[in-house]
Amino acid sequence: MTDILVINGPNLNLLGLRQPEVYGRTTLAEVEAMCVETGKDLGATVTCLQSNHEGVLIDAIHASRGTRDGIVLNAGAFTHTSIALMDAIASAEVPVVELHLSNIHARETFRHKSWIAPVAVGQICGFGPAGYALALRALIGHLETRT
Amino acid sequence: MTDILVINGPNLNLLGLRQPEVYGRTTLAEVEAMCVETGKDLGATVTCLQSNHEGVLIDAIHASRGTRDGIVLNAGAFTHTSIALMDAIASAEVPVVELHLSNIHARETFRHKSWIAPVAVGQICGFGPAGYALALRALIGHLETRT
Amino acid sequence: MTDILVINGPNLNLLGLRQPEVYGRTTLAEVEAMCVETGKDLGATVTCLQSNHEGVLIDAIHASRGTRDGIVLNAGAFTHTSIALMDAIASAEVPVVELHLSNIHARETFRHKSWIAPVAVGQICGFGPAGYALALRALIGHLETRT
Amino acid sequence: MTDILVINGPNLNLLGLRQPEVYGRTTLAEVEAMCVETGKDLGATVTCLQSNHEGVLIDAIHASRGTRDGIVLNAGAFTHTSIALMDAIASAEVPVVELHLSNIHARETFRHKSWIAPVAVGQICGFGPAGYALALRALIGHLETRT
Amino acid sequence: MTDILVINGPNLNLLGLRQPEVYGRTTLAEVEAMCVETGKDLGATVTCLQSNHEGVLIDAIHASRGTRDGIVLNAGAFTHTSIALMDAIASAEVPVVELHLSNIHARETFRHKSWIAPVAVGQICGFGPAGYALALRALIGHLETRT
Amino acid sequence: MTDILVINGPNLNLLGLRQPEVYGRTTLAEVEAMCVETGKDLGATVTCLQSNHEGVLIDAIHASRGTRDGIVLNAGAFTHTSIALMDAIASAEVPVVELHLSNIHARETFRHKSWIAPVAVGQICGFGPAGYALALRALIGHLETRT
Amino acid sequence: MTDILVINGPNLNLLGLRQPEVYGRTTLAEVEAMCVETGKDLGATVTCLQSNHEGVLIDAIHASRGTRDGIVLNAGAFTHTSIALMDAIASAEVPVVELHLSNIHARETFRHKSWIAPVAVGQICGFGPAGYALALRALIGHLETRT
Amino acid sequence: MTDILVINGPNLNLLGLRQPEVYGRTTLAEVEAMCVETGKDLGATVTCLQSNHEGVLIDAIHASRGTRDGIVLNAGAFTHTSIALMDAIASAEVPVVELHLSNIHARETFRHKSWIAPVAVGQICGFGPAGYALALRALIGHLETRT
Amino acid sequence: MTDILVINGPNLNLLGLRQPEVYGRTTLAEVEAMCVETGKDLGATVTCLQSNHEGVLIDAIHASRGTRDGIVLNAGAFTHTSIALMDAIASAEVPVVELHLSNIHARETFRHKSWIAPVAVGQICGFGPAGYALALRALIGHLETRT
Amino acid sequence: MTDILVINGPNLNLLGLRQPEVYGRTTLAEVEAMCVETGKDLGATVTCLQSNHEGVLIDAIHASRGTRDGIVLNAGAFTHTSIALMDAIASAEVPVVELHLSNIHARETFRHKSWIAPVAVGQICGFGPAGYALALRALIGHLETRT
Amino acid sequence: MTDILVINGPNLNLLGLRQPEVYGRTTLAEVEAMCVETGKDLGATVTCLQSNHEGVLIDAIHASRGTRDGIVLNAGAFTHTSIALMDAIASAEVPVVELHLSNIHARETFRHKSWIAPVAVGQICGFGPAGYALALRALIGHLETRT
Amino acid sequence: MTDILVINGPNLNLLGLRQPEVYGRTTLAEVEAMCVETGKDLGATVTCLQSNHEGVLIDAIHASRGTRDGIVLNAGAFTHTSIALMDAIASAEVPVVELHLSNIHARETFRHKSWIAPVAVGQICGFGPAGYALALRALIGHLETRT
Repeated sequence: MTDILVINGPNLNLLGLRQPEVYGRTTLAEVEAMCVETGKDLGATVTCLQSNHEGVLIDAIHASRGTRDGIVLNAGAFTHTSIALMDAIASAEVPVVELHLSNIHARETFRHKSWIAPVAVGQICGFGPAGYALALRALIGHLETRT
Repeated sequence: MTDILVINGPNLNLLGLRQPEVYGRTTLAEVEAMCVETGKDLGATVTCLQSNHEGVLIDAIHASRGTRDGIVLNAGAFTHTSIALMDAIASAEVPVVELHLSNIHARETFRHKSWIAPVAVGQICGFGPAGYALALRALIGHLETRT
Repeated sequence: MTDILVINGPNLNLLGLRQPEVYGRTTLAEVEAMCVETGKDLGATVTCLQSNHEGVLIDAIHASRGTRDGIVLNAGAFTHTSIALMDAIASAEVPVVELHLSNIHARETFRHKSWIAPVAVGQICGFGPAGYALALRALIGHLETRT
Repeated sequence: MTDILVINGPNLNLLGLRQPEVYGRTTLAEVEAMCVETGKDLGATVTCLQSNHEGVLIDAIHASRGTRDGIVLNAGAFTHTSIALMDAIASAEVPVVELHLSNIHARETFRHKSWIAPVAVGQICGFGPAGYALALRALIGHLETRT
Repeated sequence: MTDILVINGPNLNLLGLRQPEVYGRTTLAEVEAMCVETGKDLGATVTCLQSNHEGVLIDAIHASRGTRDGIVLNAGAFTHTSIALMDAIASAEVPVVELHLSNIHARETFRHKSWIAPVAVGQICGFGPAGYALALRALIGHLETRT
Repeated sequence: MTDILVINGPNLNLLGLRQPEVYGRTTLAEVEAMCVETGKDLGATVTCLQSNHEGVLIDAIHASRGTRDGIVLNAGAFTHTSIALMDAIASAEVPVVELHLSNIHARETFRHKSWIAPVAVGQICGFGPAGYALALRALIGHLETRT
Repeated sequence: MTDILVINGPNLNLLGLRQPEVYGRTTLAEVEAMCVETGKDLGATVTCLQSNHEGVLIDAIHASRGTRDGIVLNAGAFTHTSIALMDAIASAEVPVVELHLSNIHARETFRHKSWIAPVAVGQICGFGPAGYALALRALIGHLETRT
Repeated sequence: MTDILVINGPNLNLLGLRQPEVYGRTTLAEVEAMCVETGKDLGATVTCLQSNHEGVLIDAIHASRGTRDGIVLNAGAFTHTSIALMDAIASAEVPVVELHLSNIHARETFRHKSWIAPVAVGQICGFGPAGYALALRALIGHLETRT
Repeated sequence: MTDILVINGPNLNLLGLRQPEVYGRTTLAEVEAMCVETGKDLGATVTCLQSNHEGVLIDAIHASRGTRDGIVLNAGAFTHTSIALMDAIASAEVPVVELHLSNIHARETFRHKSWIAPVAVGQICGFGPAGYALALRALIGHLETRT
Repeated sequence: MTDILVINGPNLNLLGLRQPEVYGRTTLAEVEAMCVETGKDLGATVTCLQSNHEGVLIDAIHASRGTRDGIVLNAGAFTHTSIALMDAIASAEVPVVELHLSNIHARETFRHKSWIAPVAVGQICGFGPAGYALALRALIGHLETRT
Repeated sequence: MTDILVINGPNLNLLGLRQPEVYGRTTLAEVEAMCVETGKDLGATVTCLQSNHEGVLIDAIHASRGTRDGIVLNAGAFTHTSIALMDAIASAEVPVVELHLSNIHARETFRHKSWIAPVAVGQICGFGPAGYALALRALIGHLETRT
Repeated sequence: MTDILVINGPNLNLLGLRQPEVYGRTTLAEVEAMCVETGKDLGATVTCLQSNHEGVLIDAIHASRGTRDGIVLNAGAFTHTSIALMDAIASAEVPVVELHLSNIHARETFRHKSWIAPVAVGQICGFGPAGYALALRALIGHLETRT
């Protein structure tokens, strides 16, 4: 069975509380429950993880090497600053779909830059919590066409 | 019934023929058929249009004003150069989902810039032809949450 | 009798409909009627043309070569991107007054750049539809001082 | 009766003498007389002021707060360097029309930048001394549409 | 009673030891004691925290949400690099006063940029350890004028 | 027999009329006749096309796919702005020789940039109408060494 | 007794009137009275000066050389443009505390740059009129630690 | 006896596994064993540490203050982003030799920038695992010439 | 007899007092006396003027129009910021020799830029007070070769 | 008889040996023989010179002043760095055709810049050794149309 | 036996004399003797060469093609400016180790850029004359692992 | 007796012949004779040298170390590109006065940058051949005030 890790980065623990006019009112717990549910519908086991620590995210990506089939990654603000995360993904050799709740390309210029993108399969942004289901679907579709 | 226009911009008529290592082997006709099919599954009428002429794309976006519920737009290379297209979308007041076959953020720097993004709901890129189905799903989901 | 062409570029067909908080509620038809009227008052024949196609605008500018006395040009978003339009004006050897409804220098940085300006007599912007009458007056004044 | 201040900034006292191939041969006295005359035709009292001192210009703009209906401002080279002038206009809460004799967007790049523009109603440039009459007309038109 | 958190970021544990010609000879323990003392004088409870881990700082800021009245933040070098910290402050909805021991605007150019500033009430820098008392005073003053 | 398309882009229809001090006095008709003639001398059929419409140029390049042996392209000002043309050439899989009448690298900086160059065999510029014959010769030589 | 000069630069005479949503409703007279009062509390004589003329500010800074113990300087927009002011401070050899009412690092990018900072003891910004008392306190503290 | 710490930063735990075409097939354990061995040959005790957490690296550098004679530091991707690490080294007052497995100056531009370099004795890069022995030798040589 | 004006700009009144390690210990009065003396030796009347007010400098340059043979100008920090001064020189049609006490091209980057240079005969910098005599000599030589 | 100098700059002595996938397998000796041959066909004497020393190239260009009719110059890497070569060509007053074996505009960005271009008649690049014959033909054609 | 060339570029003949606080007091003769000695210890013949002429360095690199096993290159200031040297190394197909006495990445920004690096095996800098022995060791180690 | 070397760099051998509208009609021989003459008048022996070879200039500057009292250097285009020359001057420890015939700061932007300036006493430019006498005078004055 397909095994997928959904990783949420810094400040996403405050989802639903923080700036709801930008990020909506769904909480992280609800998002993660929805991810597990969507995974089931699509025949995949989904595990979820959130951390505000870059090192924890890197460790988690490393741990997926050879143990997971793919990752959905919302790296939050680390998207724009962490070359270490980019290198971690390149090292892990696990397909990653990059996700953002807001349309980062319609916001401040510094949010347009993604260090994740060059090592990701693709990017989905702007669809709020619904983006997680799209990302899971995109990732699973990608895994199927690879085999 | 939801009425959606799928617009493909310059060079996408050569889809499946042109640089298949970047864009895959599915032809535009196949993509458009799949869009119509996916639309049906999701309860939407999908119409498709392709042109290499920026003016034709602008006219089509204008014509959607008050007549369509939403647009899936793969503007091809105009994505990176056409402020007129951006203004057309802002003028048309129709929700637009931006789509790219390849992961534009993993390619040459000049392909990272999108003039479409600031006026789009969101962006999906990197999933090849499968991205059209994701975009339709994202757009229809967006239209539902608005009402 | 002085013969003047008023050219409106991309998205100006939606004038009065599109973003009225930026561009006002006067329609293009009303603007064009006002241009003809103002022309009459100032002793000039005014013809009007609008297109969303850069090529059509270039063709129209070429056609004015040796046949018109001057052009009032609102090139819309092409102002910021079209070197071809700049070259067309240089080729046509017809005096051009550059016009914008909004004050482009008070908006996003990318709207400050004008490829039209280096080959135009002068620029008028920020006065909404009233700018067309000012531009006609400026152009006719310019033509008179030349002779 | 509408009360308008026409302000000319640095080096404009040499108008008609200085670089006539760029700025024409009309003197500042003639321009100011013409402004008063045009004002009369349009039902407005026009007062004129010129200074090479940035501080004097700021003081004059402040003094217009609550006492004048509008300002026509040719800030000369301060246009390109004076944030203090920009702030003065924002503080004065009097509508300002920005004017330049030459087409600043067709000259050296450093003349394209205007610190006045973001706080001005609009900009007119390139029409030589005739621009003052256009600016007065534009300002008075603007004041009328506001009421 | 007003409840304030004083957060010190990376390398500030070496205060008093590290580069005393830049940062002075007062140790962090002394600074924190002084903060508590100053708090008492101004009627506020002050708690202090230092960490070299960005994730720990983010967690602490999150924990202040709804539990503290304000934060004095010396983010050290993270000031110049951490968008995640900026987002954490925006998420926490707690007023933050930004503090630096040295005058960061008088040092290397890369220290002029602050990601904290856009989400802070204000900034105090250059007054060494005395800056903490100023920052507490500024924060408490700010909290009073808000109510 | 070798089959070559000579494409001229925007404003080249005014060749010989437009700015003769830059582009010379030979008309486009004369240039095209000379191209056909030179083609004959070198054993090739030459067809000529000019348009001010970017879309028409893209369509023509697409139409050459699998039907022509090579293209001589003077894209005029589109050279400096059209990523869509670059992608069209990459899609068409027909060898292209880039041509300019003037030495674009000796003119304004914005004319130094060519979006055609990365997908062209080579570039010839600065030799006026004589450049077309050189380009045909270069292209035919290139085609011969390939086989 | 400590002798301090409080200098306010361009547009600060309109304090309390100008853009109150940015700068508050306290007038300059009130601010200056508060400065004198705070000075008394801290054992210092405070003199106040405001001018919109850069030259007057430079002259005042020069006059403080050897006659004042320190300066609190809110240079307004000259902060961002006047190298002459920076040189004046360096020449005067009097400690200067830089002050801004608003948080300049949270506003437009051009307001982040300070020519005063490299020659100032420190910077305080974002606390409105209350910042003057903080600045006086910071300056007097600085003077005490120097002796 | 000379006491040296060898620090490896993010993703170096995957050495030998990750992108072997760039970083070779020697594992981190082998590298660390080699470091200890080389240390012995050169009369030095070598301790090794690896972490993906920036905070852990900073803490380790701090802990070396006054307890170690020198550090060999391969900061991985933090090299290009961490001003906090730079400050930590400056604070620790322990000589640091900067090491990279690959020739960072021959790779992507963003890898050319090193925040470590301004506070390091020197830099060695491009020699793969053999670089560690060179770095130890360079560091020990440096320590000898200092005494 | 040749009539020359020596103008000194902002902060030069503190010459000899201000930063003597950069600008030397000769006072402005001594420099001006030396200028008059040197003028006499070279057959020229020299008048001297210093001001910290940009407007005063502009007025003085205007007043030289048609009344002086040449100007030696040390514009101090206005050199790097005042386009108005540049325009004043262009307007005055009097030859100007640009002078600086220090070698501005060996100092901070922002001091390398001169707005005076494009309208000056030449530039002399780095020779301290002795530069004034060189500048007078250069100017008088220039005036002689012109006639 | 027309007298032409063909100059090859640094590293072109290794032509045919060096990176044949970029520069082909024809040696410099063969290229020079071909140049002489082509010259004969076109009625011109061709002399050839190669050096890795910038000074030798400058001397050779100077020596052509008044002695040669034209120069074909492949300046190799000096193209991108040598302002001295540009000045030498401007000084020599001999027409120069710029040549490159590879299409420099399709390679690394630093190879797009040519200091030769602003003083050359035109540029030919991308056609390998065949470019020399094209360049000779272009130069001789240029010389003919001048007389 | 391994045959290695040690090349020193401009100004290194003054080693030991020139700026000893930056480059140390060892002379070039001593460095070269040490290189020969170190070579012997490591089983290699070392030849040394120094020149201030870029052309001589290029010629020497060319001459190593097929005759030497490797080069240690300290290109001095040419490191930062000479694309011709970079091309020479690429042409010579001899492994090059880049060496600098000082830590170029800790000095002025213009010394951070190396044109040698993209074609070198690796870089060693900051260890003074001791760096030559490290570079020889690194080069010989590299040659051994290749075979 | 003071011993001075006057060095002229690339293309200055063509002085008087090359672009006389920029550089005048005096030949290099005349300039050098004038330098010797001026030297005599000022009590100095002047030797002159010109070369188009950067290496020769560096060697000459090195040779002046400890043997000359000062250098007047017109480095021509090497001024803008040669870091090696800058390093040579720093190494030679001989005072250098930088000279240019034309006002380099009034010409193309790339001529504003001088690598010589940071290591020169001062700069004189814009006075044509007369500049050499000024430079000698400036240098000798500088040498006198040093002793």
